[in-house]
Amino acid sequence: MQTSVAISPSSVKNSAAKTVISVDAMGGDLGVAVVIDGMSRAARKNPQISFIVHGDEPTITPLLAKRKVLTGRVSVRHTDEVVDMHDRPSHVMRHGKGTSMWSCLEAVRAKEASVAVSCGNTGALMALSMIRLRKAAGVKRPAIAILWPSLNPQGFNVMLDVGADIRADAQDLKVFALMGASYARNGLGLERPRIGLLNVGTEDHKGKPELHEANDIIAEDAKMNGFEYVGFVEGGDIPSDKVDVIVTDGFTGNVALKTGEGTASLIGLRMREAFTRNLLSKLSALFVLRSLRHLRDKIDPRQVNGGVFLGLNGTVIKSHGAADATGVEAAIRLAFQLAQLGFTEKLAARVASGMQNRQDEDEANGEIVETPQSSENT
Amino acid sequence: MQTSVAISPSSVKNSAAKTVISVDAMGGDLGVAVVIDGMSRAARKNPQISFIVHGDEPTITPLLAKRKVLTGRVSVRHTDEVVDMHDRPSHVMRHGKGTSMWSCLEAVRAKEASVAVSCGNTGALMALSMIRLRKAAGVKRPAIAILWPSLNPQGFNVMLDVGADIRADAQDLKVFALMGASYARNGLGLERPRIGLLNVGTEDHKGKPELHEANDIIAEDAKMNGFEYVGFVEGGDIPSDKVDVIVTDGFTGNVALKTGEGTASLIGLRMREAFTRNLLSKLSALFVLRSLRHLRDKIDPRQVNGGVFLGLNGTVIKSHGAADATGVEAAIRLAFQLAQLGFTEKLAARVASGMQNRQDEDEANGEIVETPQSSENT
Repeated sequence: MQTSVAISPSSVKNSAAKTVISVDAMGGDLGVAVVIDGMSRAARKNPQISFIVHGDEPTITPLLAKRKVLTGRVSVRHTDEVVDMHDRPSHVMRHGKGTSMWSCLEAVRAKEASVAVSCGNTGALMALSMIRLRKAAGVKRPAIAILWPSLNPQGFNVMLDVGADIRADAQDLKVFALMGASYARNGLGLERPRIGLLNVGTEDHKGKPELHEANDIIAEDAKMNGFEYVGFVEGGDIPSDKVDVIVTDGFTGNVALKTGEGTASLIGLRMREAFTRNLLSKLSALFVLRSLRHLRDKIDPRQVNGGVFLGLNGTVIKSHGAADATGVEAAIRLAFQLAQLGFTEKLAARVASGMQNRQDEDEANGEIVETPQSSENT
Repeated sequence: MQTSVAISPSSVKNSAAKTVISVDAMGGDLGVAVVIDGMSRAARKNPQISFIVHGDEPTITPLLAKRKVLTGRVSVRHTDEVVDMHDRPSHVMRHGKGTSMWSCLEAVRAKEASVAVSCGNTGALMALSMIRLRKAAGVKRPAIAILWPSLNPQGFNVMLDVGADIRADAQDLKVFALMGASYARNGLGLERPRIGLLNVGTEDHKGKPELHEANDIIAEDAKMNGFEYVGFVEGGDIPSDKVDVIVTDGFTGNVALKTGEGTASLIGLRMREAFTRNLLSKLSALFVLRSLRHLRDKIDPRQVNGGVFLGLNGTVIKSHGAADATGVEAAIRLAFQLAQLGFTEKLAARVASGMQNRQDEDEANGEIVETPQSSENT
């Protein structure tokens, strides 16, 4: 990878009245065209969006030219390099400067865009986000939050961390609870979200020591922090209506997320098999086509594509690497919604206040506890 | 809980020619009748099974009398006490002597029965199993293995540990690989099972330090131990055909198992909704009823009910607490199969040999490493 970067002049028109989303065109498995297609779909439905798009200009410009809805709404920033799906985060941190991913985050850092969207390598995106945007005050470990189809009226629950880091101590889990509550409030419109801590049983004596400690400190000032704490929840509760936000470490969360996806796709495959077994089953499938489509819409992961990086000075959305145009569109829609709500600032205020509550209480109890500060990598 | 226990005399007829299964009649959520019903179903299909059943004799005997197929094939051992679903394992270890669960394990310890089956509290059953049966040589942490519906020709993959313990170090994970391979060989008939280690990515640099260490030591003598090692796998691979046995710690495994179950039941619920939305969808559901039944049979967890405790001097099967008669029957069928194959002895030999290989190699390399021994609680 080279480290040179050529940036074309910004030419977003009417950007004052618009919400600018910074899009990494390069990282997705399905290529640049799918990303541009997702952008044009989002732009068609929402006249307030404009874009800064980062990547190989000679590839991007002809694709943009084909989509009239994007005319005058996109600024292209050329980069020579791309972060590969197999690049190690540590490598990208040292040598990532010429990549579309770096450029995409840079636009958010420079306040030219409100939210960054990338389909690229998750580990590299988180590593670069930490370097360029830095961690928000009070956050030791940022987290990736996703929406999980659920039985709740809002249709989805929030789960975090699904893989920003492989571990989390009790204080981190407390910060995840504050951030997850803020995301549920802004992303799902829940005034007083119910938070649960993922464990192997709901009884107080079950699980690891850090979970017992987190259980205590999340509970103690839940009311002050604007959420309800329901205590321990189990894997089976993730898609339930007993809870709105599920808090866990990034190792467990990542395994759970991929297990849920794997289970859903196995069942989907078995359903297709069942409906194409013989002529009768193929015929009968025709009769239930509408019902099946309705079902798919309710559990289609493409409709809620986008893991949100929480705990940085800026909002970053990681779209699925294999996202198609529908998936990219969903990620951009989410980016727009969060940008409109001023989510980054609201979240930062919640974490600062939540961790301050705790510090105040600890001091009142005669203990001086250091509030976790961002260990600022540069 | 009292500690007295009244044991009625054993009266199993023709026990020499039969395989005796020890059944705890008391612990299930659905009551004793469901357990007896499951026993009679298994007995009807398999004339070689006989039972020792443990629990409240005045409840059990009238239920047995109603089922002719069980006549002369069941010995009842009365106990006054029952382990409750909410009893802590530590409490049961100290005060469990008068319970049906204790008595059920005692029959295996005394070699009166080959395998124990209980629907009761998992934590308590594992704690009592460790006290009464003790850990096999070379096993520091026993594990619970389950069968997971998969795309493989055999229809299922093995996953362990799904909750015997909340942690596992690299040596434990190696033992899990040996035990899981043995279970896949005997339970699924796979001559040379493919083993994978659950992680958050398949690249070598991903995940926790103990996983990197385990990755090395499981790989190094896979061939000698009769399995193929495929390296790291992810949550999405659990139901795949890339692997036959998935090795993980009991915390992660338990969350993954319950997440998979929760996802499957959410989809099941949404399917029922889709097919009962209106008159047309109800009508069309009639046309696909056969296909839907076929689908259900392929993913119905009741058909493979039973977590197997591995790494003890005796085989114990934990049936789901909410198991109905079909579930209990499946657990007993599995118990019979493993008993017939002499599974306990085969597994012990594999672990002893696998850990011996490693010790030999370490010694050849000039290191003296202590083979983990059972820390025998009494």
